[in-house]
Amino acid sequence: MNNLDLQKLLDEMTLEEKIDQLLQLAPAFFEGANSAGQITGPLEGLDLAVENVRRTGSVLGVGGAEEAIHIQEAYLRHNRLNIPLLMMADVVHGYRTIFPVPLAMGSSWDVELVRQAAAIAAKEAAVAGIHVTFSPMADLTRDPRWGRVMESTGEDPWLNGQFARAFVRGYQGEGIANEPYKIAACIKHFAAYGAAEGGRDYNTVDMSEWMRREFYMPSYRAALEEGCEMVMTSFNTVDGIPATGNRRLMRELLRKEWGFDGVLISDWGAVKEMIAHGVAEDEKECALKAIEAGVDIEMMSSCYPHHLQELIASGAVDVQLVNEAVMRILQLKHKLGLFENPHRYADSVAEREILLNEQHLAAAHEAALKSSVLLKNERNVLPLAKDAKVALIGPFATSDDLLGPWSCMGKREEAVTLAAGMLGVADPNTVTAIGCGVEHIPDEELAAMVEAANSAEVVVLALGEDSEMSGEAGCRANIQLPDRQLELVKRVRALGKPLVAVLFNGRPLDLHGVLDEADAVLEAWYPGTRGGAAIAELLYGEANPSGRLTMSFPHSVGQVSVYYNAFNTGRPKDDPNAQVRYVSQYLDIPNEPMLPFGYGLSYSSFRYGEAALSSPLIRAEEKLLLTVTVTNVGERAGSETVQLYVRDIAGETVRPMRELKAFRKIMLEAGETKEIEFEINEPMLRYHHADLSYKSDPGKFEAMVGPNSKEVQALSFELV
Amino acid sequence: MNNLDLQKLLDEMTLEEKIDQLLQLAPAFFEGANSAGQITGPLEGLDLAVENVRRTGSVLGVGGAEEAIHIQEAYLRHNRLNIPLLMMADVVHGYRTIFPVPLAMGSSWDVELVRQAAAIAAKEAAVAGIHVTFSPMADLTRDPRWGRVMESTGEDPWLNGQFARAFVRGYQGEGIANEPYKIAACIKHFAAYGAAEGGRDYNTVDMSEWMRREFYMPSYRAALEEGCEMVMTSFNTVDGIPATGNRRLMRELLRKEWGFDGVLISDWGAVKEMIAHGVAEDEKECALKAIEAGVDIEMMSSCYPHHLQELIASGAVDVQLVNEAVMRILQLKHKLGLFENPHRYADSVAEREILLNEQHLAAAHEAALKSSVLLKNERNVLPLAKDAKVALIGPFATSDDLLGPWSCMGKREEAVTLAAGMLGVADPNTVTAIGCGVEHIPDEELAAMVEAANSAEVVVLALGEDSEMSGEAGCRANIQLPDRQLELVKRVRALGKPLVAVLFNGRPLDLHGVLDEADAVLEAWYPGTRGGAAIAELLYGEANPSGRLTMSFPHSVGQVSVYYNAFNTGRPKDDPNAQVRYVSQYLDIPNEPMLPFGYGLSYSSFRYGEAALSSPLIRAEEKLLLTVTVTNVGERAGSETVQLYVRDIAGETVRPMRELKAFRKIMLEAGETKEIEFEINEPMLRYHHADLSYKSDPGKFEAMVGPNSKEVQALSFELV
Repeated sequence: MNNLDLQKLLDEMTLEEKIDQLLQLAPAFFEGANSAGQITGPLEGLDLAVENVRRTGSVLGVGGAEEAIHIQEAYLRHNRLNIPLLMMADVVHGYRTIFPVPLAMGSSWDVELVRQAAAIAAKEAAVAGIHVTFSPMADLTRDPRWGRVMESTGEDPWLNGQFARAFVRGYQGEGIANEPYKIAACIKHFAAYGAAEGGRDYNTVDMSEWMRREFYMPSYRAALEEGCEMVMTSFNTVDGIPATGNRRLMRELLRKEWGFDGVLISDWGAVKEMIAHGVAEDEKECALKAIEAGVDIEMMSSCYPHHLQELIASGAVDVQLVNEAVMRILQLKHKLGLFENPHRYADSVAEREILLNEQHLAAAHEAALKSSVLLKNERNVLPLAKDAKVALIGPFATSDDLLGPWSCMGKREEAVTLAAGMLGVADPNTVTAIGCGVEHIPDEELAAMVEAANSAEVVVLALGEDSEMSGEAGCRANIQLPDRQLELVKRVRALGKPLVAVLFNGRPLDLHGVLDEADAVLEAWYPGTRGGAAIAELLYGEANPSGRLTMSFPHSVGQVSVYYNAFNTGRPKDDPNAQVRYVSQYLDIPNEPMLPFGYGLSYSSFRYGEAALSSPLIRAEEKLLLTVTVTNVGERAGSETVQLYVRDIAGETVRPMRELKAFRKIMLEAGETKEIEFEINEPMLRYHHADLSYKSDPGKFEAMVGPNSKEVQALSFELV
Repeated sequence: MNNLDLQKLLDEMTLEEKIDQLLQLAPAFFEGANSAGQITGPLEGLDLAVENVRRTGSVLGVGGAEEAIHIQEAYLRHNRLNIPLLMMADVVHGYRTIFPVPLAMGSSWDVELVRQAAAIAAKEAAVAGIHVTFSPMADLTRDPRWGRVMESTGEDPWLNGQFARAFVRGYQGEGIANEPYKIAACIKHFAAYGAAEGGRDYNTVDMSEWMRREFYMPSYRAALEEGCEMVMTSFNTVDGIPATGNRRLMRELLRKEWGFDGVLISDWGAVKEMIAHGVAEDEKECALKAIEAGVDIEMMSSCYPHHLQELIASGAVDVQLVNEAVMRILQLKHKLGLFENPHRYADSVAEREILLNEQHLAAAHEAALKSSVLLKNERNVLPLAKDAKVALIGPFATSDDLLGPWSCMGKREEAVTLAAGMLGVADPNTVTAIGCGVEHIPDEELAAMVEAANSAEVVVLALGEDSEMSGEAGCRANIQLPDRQLELVKRVRALGKPLVAVLFNGRPLDLHGVLDEADAVLEAWYPGTRGGAAIAELLYGEANPSGRLTMSFPHSVGQVSVYYNAFNTGRPKDDPNAQVRYVSQYLDIPNEPMLPFGYGLSYSSFRYGEAALSSPLIRAEEKLLLTVTVTNVGERAGSETVQLYVRDIAGETVRPMRELKAFRKIMLEAGETKEIEFEINEPMLRYHHADLSYKSDPGKFEAMVGPNSKEVQALSFELV
């Protein structure tokens, strides 16, 4: 089938068939379904006729190959033109083999790892009958109150773009039509969903277009440059208009300026939610605004089927808008090969062989090893000796709540708990594991854990937030661990034993009461199916921690939003001539976060030599080289992430104090030295000016290199 | 002298004289000065010659008539063309007679009161030799972490505009040339200074132009419509460019679109701070950007005198820009009558008679009565019986730190403490007063206070933040009262005595531990010179509290920013069809603030009748009438503030859930009923559309009336 055939098919479609092609429904609506899907929005009666469902273009959240095949078969029996259903799902960090959450995967600073994870997720999803995943999320995040930060890769525009590309490459490979077991990616949430006011999900987003283009847009655009097939609208407003009805954002920027010609889908219920937003009086106005903005697929509301016909009949909507939307959907179905094989890779036998296979589990294991971030390690309490008598206590000691939100078809019972992991690495007689609740810990349970700690040589506290405490709509005003866990830390600390805290959570936390109390702290995030096994290897030193934070950990929630790539202000606190009072500061806490972007420790120690620049000047079309040696001065092999930041000393607009421009993740044997070379070129120095033009200005710059965004050496150069 | 004479004068000025006319310095630079002024910025050596100072156009912060006269006389002895110095000062809430801080004055909802206070401040300042005040501040504020919220009147654009007008009318009267004892007002901080990120003073501000125009700009514009003579630039960035160098904001919007032809002054040091902001490499670039933006007066940095000459010589700056700036300054001096009488009202004898006179103190007293907000009153613990045995304890029991930040020439020792106030109202034998520190309260002091409480019949806890904890650069990440004060509340609460808390502070606080513990809570803010006397009258019922909050009190700092005129979002929590989880909410706290905008109690109780609209339809150029009866069902006369809010059900952009459109502050005798009538007209329904046009749309609206922004009756109407 080619575009001409698709056009012919389109011509044959009735207006009703076209309109319903734009509809996306959950499996529960379909004959052959065996699950009701996960309902995530205010789902009122969609008020659809059986005819609408029989013409519906796509379905989200089918539960495996068998269901996919049943639904597709039943559907095609009734579909006049034999246009297959498109099947989508939230494959976010794995399908059945669950990888660490994206915020954790981002902490790996390993784009190839992320690509492989996405490729494995695609393969599992493909054989389970999925054609498109609602991933990656490329939202820039600066507010840990927002539960959905776990689904992001953090606060850096460029790094988010690198990861978004890696996810897209993993899902789509060399193209969904060219490589087996590939699925289409859908970049979300367009645009700037990560900036919800007060960190409250779905809340108002407001920022200047300059800010949006400079910080929030690059990661979406990177995914599209990588060939991402679909885009999802965000729930929030952009310049006062919900993204789903925002013509300027979608038609003018996304379609026209960026040239995106793939499918644009609403988020769940977002078309109809324009009524609640207060930009539409009724469903009809929702349909009008969404189709005008260019939304091709309406997910889980029925404004299009209810009203597009009359809007076209009255002349309010040009039927051409509908034709174009349908054509884009048909093209995607065609690219996926659905017209030739509507079941595509859906295969119950292959599903049993491929899902959760050894290779996939090994990849998930590696991802968990690389995603964990060692935040503190004093008195060399880590790694643990394998013969040390360990009390493993706290809510995550024995919990299988390790997959994190949006874990698709992952099953908790398939997750390796930390207790199981440690028993697998150490002599089982050395480990006493006692779990408890996350928020409610009865006195006697707390006492029993303290008692166990008292009988041990070293204590491992497995702390954290349960997975409902982050994720979509999982927003919290308090970002400390629950009080009872902090009480547990305090009580155990009082014993004076070597104390290790392992954290399982989906957001940066205010770690007062943990980081200051424990001798060592390992941020394990939600590490996925192989979580406990990988964490145990890190704790016992079978592997060496190498993760680095991609989101700042604030000093307290009263400091939010705090992020490394901020502007200097006119009265920076650290200015040598600064006054005591009249500078930009808090009276009661520091300006700096508790832990900065890029931060993470290792069991090795790395020493940086003096960095050098190949020239103090750079001209356009030339390049500078920054070189620095890094030596592993520790006693074991380890991995260091060497980070390059740049600062533009004076721009037309204000410029961040540091901007990540490149990094190298290197492995060094004990005692080994490597010379790292970074290229700096003029395109790296471009930014959005007040008129939104993207270019560089001649003038002074600083290049900074170091192990994180705070501890850097700075070298001056000039763009001439 | 007329414009022609001014032009002649300008023509006679050398370029050096012109450039130095643009400079503003602190008194310390001048011969005849006896004070060094208050230094609020990173003051490095300004590196000025004595000639520059002798040509300087203006001075800020002279310390009274005598100094003003000495400086002016000495200055004119050396000034070739006899152009007098313009004298400015931070007369923010009174000159010597200190009124409550603006956030408190705003709580009065009494624009005439504010006008009178400003008129008194102007009179005192005028006889002390001041010509211009750096007031009013019209910054919209939504973040209580920001210390400078005490200088604002809150979170409503329209109400801020009403107060800004009242301040301008009070300072300027019918015009500074037409009425005696008037001084010029300077609206600040242009623009959007109140939205500093993280509530950290001087920090980045970023928002869409749509947001800025709809919420942040109206109050500045109202002041200009009222004839405000001057504008001050803000420290923050606007669309990525510091306001002080923002040509688009100043030349295009302020000057061209709004037609402002008065003097534009930088904030302290703000011209040079463009280097720290990173939009200028050196002072020369600062001078270039500021003069291009249209900054007439450079306050306390010396980029203009150091570099304007060479910038003009090189052709980078058109001398015409300097001529225009000088002309605006000469025009203001002329309007003030300085060419005829350079000392104007400066008069040491009048100063002694006028400052702090009986009439002024009475006005400050009335302002304090009307600015205090009764937040809670259970078990009728207030008013206190005059013969009740009272323990008055806590940091503000005997403190004279009642003037608040920016209290100009106010003297703490002239403030009436709460202890003195209560002893003046009640039988002195009934009151035991024990004060203590604000943050550090030794155990024995705490014990003594608890002991005193235990011996009393009723306890008055005078709590709060010292005045350094708010104000410029007084930003806090924790907005609860200091721990030791909360400890004091807890200990006293345990005694089971009737408990009244009186709060002295400059920001909305998280009142957990106070509002839930005390039987009654009176928010006294920083009530000014007559503070303790007025608060005592309220406590003993000689006056009836009538203040209403103009800024929401958040549930916790993790909820910031929270404000009443927010948008509904696409997934409002209170939707009848809302899901349990997938709505815009926090998992751990409510969405609602602890105390809403417009809230405040009285010793009277008011009952609202059923409101009615004159018609369900409104056409442009027509008006609707909303009527409602309000009855005082309490036992004493009291004042109620009846508030009218409007909601636009569906706009082109999202619209606030409620917007204050009008209010009536009425006095009702016990048992009295009044009918209140509000007019609703089409101009009230206008708002900024996506293209920034300001107009209304036909469609559905709701009018809401009630005692605060939360407890309202809603009536539907339609604009046709």
